[in-house]
Amino acid sequence: MSLTNRSLVTIDDLSDGEMEALFSLADEMADYPKNQTELCHGKIMASLFFEPSTRTRLSFEAGMLRLGGRVITTVDIGASSLAKGETIADMAKVVGSYADIIVIRHPWEGAARVVADYAGIPVINAGDGSHEHPTQTLCDLYTIRKQRRTIRNLRIALWGDLKHGRTVHSLIYALARFDATILFCPGPGLEMPEHVLRRLSSEYKGELKKCRNLNQELNSKLFPIDAVYLTPSSPHQLAMLPDINVGVELKAGVDALYVTRLQKERQAPTVGVQELKKGYPVVDKKLLKAKEFKKTLVMHPLPRVDELTHEMDADPRSMYFKQAAYGMPVRMALLALLLGAKEPTIPEEKDSFIRKTDYPVYHRDSGITCPNTNCVSNQETEVRYIKPEFKIVSRQPLTLRCIYCDHELHPQYVASSEWHQRKLENKKYHSADSHFAKKIKPENLIVFASKDEAKAQQFRPSSYVRQ
Amino acid sequence: MSLTNRSLVTIDDLSDGEMEALFSLADEMADYPKNQTELCHGKIMASLFFEPSTRTRLSFEAGMLRLGGRVITTVDIGASSLAKGETIADMAKVVGSYADIIVIRHPWEGAARVVADYAGIPVINAGDGSHEHPTQTLCDLYTIRKQRRTIRNLRIALWGDLKHGRTVHSLIYALARFDATILFCPGPGLEMPEHVLRRLSSEYKGELKKCRNLNQELNSKLFPIDAVYLTPSSPHQLAMLPDINVGVELKAGVDALYVTRLQKERQAPTVGVQELKKGYPVVDKKLLKAKEFKKTLVMHPLPRVDELTHEMDADPRSMYFKQAAYGMPVRMALLALLLGAKEPTIPEEKDSFIRKTDYPVYHRDSGITCPNTNCVSNQETEVRYIKPEFKIVSRQPLTLRCIYCDHELHPQYVASSEWHQRKLENKKYHSADSHFAKKIKPENLIVFASKDEAKAQQFRPSSYVRQ
Amino acid sequence: MSLTNRSLVTIDDLSDGEMEALFSLADEMADYPKNQTELCHGKIMASLFFEPSTRTRLSFEAGMLRLGGRVITTVDIGASSLAKGETIADMAKVVGSYADIIVIRHPWEGAARVVADYAGIPVINAGDGSHEHPTQTLCDLYTIRKQRRTIRNLRIALWGDLKHGRTVHSLIYALARFDATILFCPGPGLEMPEHVLRRLSSEYKGELKKCRNLNQELNSKLFPIDAVYLTPSSPHQLAMLPDINVGVELKAGVDALYVTRLQKERQAPTVGVQELKKGYPVVDKKLLKAKEFKKTLVMHPLPRVDELTHEMDADPRSMYFKQAAYGMPVRMALLALLLGAKEPTIPEEKDSFIRKTDYPVYHRDSGITCPNTNCVSNQETEVRYIKPEFKIVSRQPLTLRCIYCDHELHPQYVASSEWHQRKLENKKYHSADSHFAKKIKPENLIVFASKDEAKAQQFRPSSYVRQ
Repeated sequence: MSLTNRSLVTIDDLSDGEMEALFSLADEMADYPKNQTELCHGKIMASLFFEPSTRTRLSFEAGMLRLGGRVITTVDIGASSLAKGETIADMAKVVGSYADIIVIRHPWEGAARVVADYAGIPVINAGDGSHEHPTQTLCDLYTIRKQRRTIRNLRIALWGDLKHGRTVHSLIYALARFDATILFCPGPGLEMPEHVLRRLSSEYKGELKKCRNLNQELNSKLFPIDAVYLTPSSPHQLAMLPDINVGVELKAGVDALYVTRLQKERQAPTVGVQELKKGYPVVDKKLLKAKEFKKTLVMHPLPRVDELTHEMDADPRSMYFKQAAYGMPVRMALLALLLGAKEPTIPEEKDSFIRKTDYPVYHRDSGITCPNTNCVSNQETEVRYIKPEFKIVSRQPLTLRCIYCDHELHPQYVASSEWHQRKLENKKYHSADSHFAKKIKPENLIVFASKDEAKAQQFRPSSYVRQ
Repeated sequence: MSLTNRSLVTIDDLSDGEMEALFSLADEMADYPKNQTELCHGKIMASLFFEPSTRTRLSFEAGMLRLGGRVITTVDIGASSLAKGETIADMAKVVGSYADIIVIRHPWEGAARVVADYAGIPVINAGDGSHEHPTQTLCDLYTIRKQRRTIRNLRIALWGDLKHGRTVHSLIYALARFDATILFCPGPGLEMPEHVLRRLSSEYKGELKKCRNLNQELNSKLFPIDAVYLTPSSPHQLAMLPDINVGVELKAGVDALYVTRLQKERQAPTVGVQELKKGYPVVDKKLLKAKEFKKTLVMHPLPRVDELTHEMDADPRSMYFKQAAYGMPVRMALLALLLGAKEPTIPEEKDSFIRKTDYPVYHRDSGITCPNTNCVSNQETEVRYIKPEFKIVSRQPLTLRCIYCDHELHPQYVASSEWHQRKLENKKYHSADSHFAKKIKPENLIVFASKDEAKAQQFRPSSYVRQ
Repeated sequence: MSLTNRSLVTIDDLSDGEMEALFSLADEMADYPKNQTELCHGKIMASLFFEPSTRTRLSFEAGMLRLGGRVITTVDIGASSLAKGETIADMAKVVGSYADIIVIRHPWEGAARVVADYAGIPVINAGDGSHEHPTQTLCDLYTIRKQRRTIRNLRIALWGDLKHGRTVHSLIYALARFDATILFCPGPGLEMPEHVLRRLSSEYKGELKKCRNLNQELNSKLFPIDAVYLTPSSPHQLAMLPDINVGVELKAGVDALYVTRLQKERQAPTVGVQELKKGYPVVDKKLLKAKEFKKTLVMHPLPRVDELTHEMDADPRSMYFKQAAYGMPVRMALLALLLGAKEPTIPEEKDSFIRKTDYPVYHRDSGITCPNTNCVSNQETEVRYIKPEFKIVSRQPLTLRCIYCDHELHPQYVASSEWHQRKLENKKYHSADSHFAKKIKPENLIVFASKDEAKAQQFRPSSYVRQ
């Protein structure tokens, strides 16, 4: 399938085969730079960065220029018309009429999806809040592939601020697809969000094991492992003897240790950043002397602060500057593909790609909103045109996932549009976990956040509603 | 007349024929983009934006790049040497030695004129305070022309913040030249400034009717019409029976409804923005159901906030995203013409262009300053080299118009340089409306803001001065 | 010697011959612009400006574009990852993997040196705090050369804020090499820093005369001369009769008067800027009527504020806009040379270039830090990897010069590593000015800022330490 004119909002927008094709093209970009200098001649990339960035923006821009294309840039929210109260949809439409492709970074989760919906040209998500950062994931995987010759069946440890790090969110979805075992080693209070873990285990079919407290002794020597994601494709000892075999798992070695910094700027204002900083683990030469790390790739999406010492820079295991440098060929390949300057050669598809599940979609105007205050669908300017929309990812318990930011909600009360459409006096609502509720077809489902909300819409409690 | 090396500071810098030629070239830019990619090869555009902008800046930059030219950009006043106290004249001279053309947006009214005076290269005004924004007007007219096949004899309604909207100021001067009838529908307290209306009726020879209170009934159904400008070329019923025929005028339909947002950032600090917002009219589907608007083009210079609902976006009458999109071919045409990459084909001049009146100029150092505190001639840094200068646009009442910002003043006292040059003891001043005052030749005129000012310059009151 | 792949951090990085070659190439750039349009095709310049700039940044960028190269830009510290706590070394490494050359302006003194150390590509210092601004010096010298046909044996007066003006610091080192006599005319409290004057007289072998109070009478007519640097190559009357001959010196005429603005943004917070402004000398037509200035080039690095009146702009002696304009060909020549697009033709080396003295380097971890709080080696983020390092420029008195910012320190106590390595109980320290101290070989020298510091490192006072 051609990548021309498509957008990259989430890492799931690319199939496994497309990723492999992109990496081959990145090799070509790196190895024969002189062949690429006219590939995107006459094309314009709009670089819209509403959050600070050096690495990502400059590598996209340098990449586009090295392809012979040109660049227009907006870097500062103060210098943009957003300050005048414009919606991002309007901005997307307008910029879409000047440029051939948009690269956007934005503090709101789901912003890149909205821009892609309205721009009319391909859009690349260069980071949307704490949500996703798919091109960083491409750089990460490409780095591993260059070093290990494969991105399949890896054992990866994720270290640090797993709560706010959008890079790790995009990364684990990709790793899961390529049959990785993932060890989660968060800083205290910085655990991977529940909805991310749930998506991981529900969508990618692996098994998630919480291990904290199980291996205190081990932890003291290495680092606290909070949870392990076990890929379904390769059976593990661990799966059978969870209490003791995290150590066994580790003894086989860790392919990559992915360190992230404390995302100070995304902490809730009530959180004591100084406290977090104090408890934040540091990766240094001493830690990496353990034999489990003998051949471990030390990775970091950069910028780093204190969590990874400068003494590691000269260590041959350190990959973080290579990761950054690979940003250019990887992004060149992506730009060339989305702009149709290159057609991908998709290698014979192995069966391992778990296609995105086609969940039924809920988009009634029934008072339900996304619980994430940072979601694009909750912003004052954007509610003018965005209606909340959710995938119904589970009926038991009833779980709706925001199509913009992937946060989940669990409505307590439901009704059926079928019943009351036929007989209006029957506008009754039920507890979401009642026997009756589960029989409602997805297309007829109406959900309420509260009894009051149901009442406000003229529904009365059925006998299935607990008082 | 060639456009090469000329500047575009006010919409009056282009003749009607030049505008038509520019629009034809814009058609060519839009229809044959591949023919333009080397037109401005080797040329550099400096994009100097001292106020926020997405649309205007990005369309200029994308346009220049699509012409094969290159761009250097300064977007933030904090990142510029102006923060160090430099004058814009110095900046203009310096940038003029690096670039081939300058595009400037600046918060001071008249700033673009100063830059054009000093840069030594063509300068395009991309908005100077509340003064003018001529390239927006070109996009507006081009949009109408694309839809209506003509820009002559239109009936246009202007809606919203007519006080601060520089786009509407430039627009009405152009509309008047093309024989438009203009309906003014301002938000409360946001009426078109007096000096703009006066320039409209004095320079373009149409008739201005104030209509508020005349047609309350009509207004309640539609929107409050504050004033109507009637072009002299097409006689109207209204001109003869002003009290009742605004309705007649409207029944013939409105060609375009030009909506503008409340310019929060330009309100005086004493004005309650919340109050203004509350009373600000909203254009929505319901309003546009009236049969007067059946074929009305709905226009907006963008960004919009709340004054034009998103539900209108899919309506075929909505032109605002097209307006924005046309920014690119229009600005490409303008750049190509001013840089001499294209010579305009001026169509046979019809007689309708009212040439700029050649008013006598007043530039004595007699203590008179522009009354507009936001005028470039009143800024602390710029008074080092700018001397106030005025066009004498009327003797009865005596009216001086600032050459930088078009604001007007009415000095109360005058003298003649002839008299006192011949006989120094005769340094006397007169009331500006006295019989004697009117006899002073423009080249001999000396004006004073006050008796004290006259006294300070050793003038004594004549018998024509009221005590 | 080829300039390809070299960096320009300080003006001393270029030999006299290389400067002359660069100026010849700049002539070529200015005279045959059309020949240069493909010179740097395919090359990318990263423009990293962490301080406001119009002139320098835009001339570098316009220059690179006119050479056929392309540009990526970061202008605002708020928009950069530095805000996230990243070190400039990390930034340098990353940007070094995207671009072919870096131009950096940074508020920390020595920042450009660090970037050059880590980037792996050529780096140009476009101003680092109050330290150096070598490309401005190149423009200054090029301007003089265009007017005078030589840059040798000039008499130059420096005027204004000599304390903070980085342009004048780079300039005097270059002038001294070309046998200039330099008259220092600082605003009150804005004298040239001691370490700069000391470097001038120690490295370039001229003689420095303090003249204040010697010529009050003269001063009142002209301007206060604070000091004179006399080149060793041409003997002066002044050298023999210092008290009276500043006047004699001046009567021969001043080749250039180099005016600088008050650097408000670099004043210590305790300094009353209003006070400084009041006492700040102004250069105007009246001052320049003196016959000493009849043929004087009036120079200014711009931006100017009030210290040089606009009335001078039309004066044929005024060179400042030419200086700015020459920025483009000079920077084009520099870029082309460092990128290897041109090989310099070094004219036959005259013997006048005083090579950089090879001072012994002190880089022990003995608690000594640079006394300059604005030095890059003292910044919270940078101490993670930078170790203080000093040149031992004098033993009597013991003087260490920071390799990053050129500030000097005079440690009071010293020890020898030789002594205590041989016999550990002999870890004794001495007064730096003691007889014994001077015998310590540079490679064995250990210095301490205080007795406490020495004690903290287990050294005991020798009998040569005053109690």
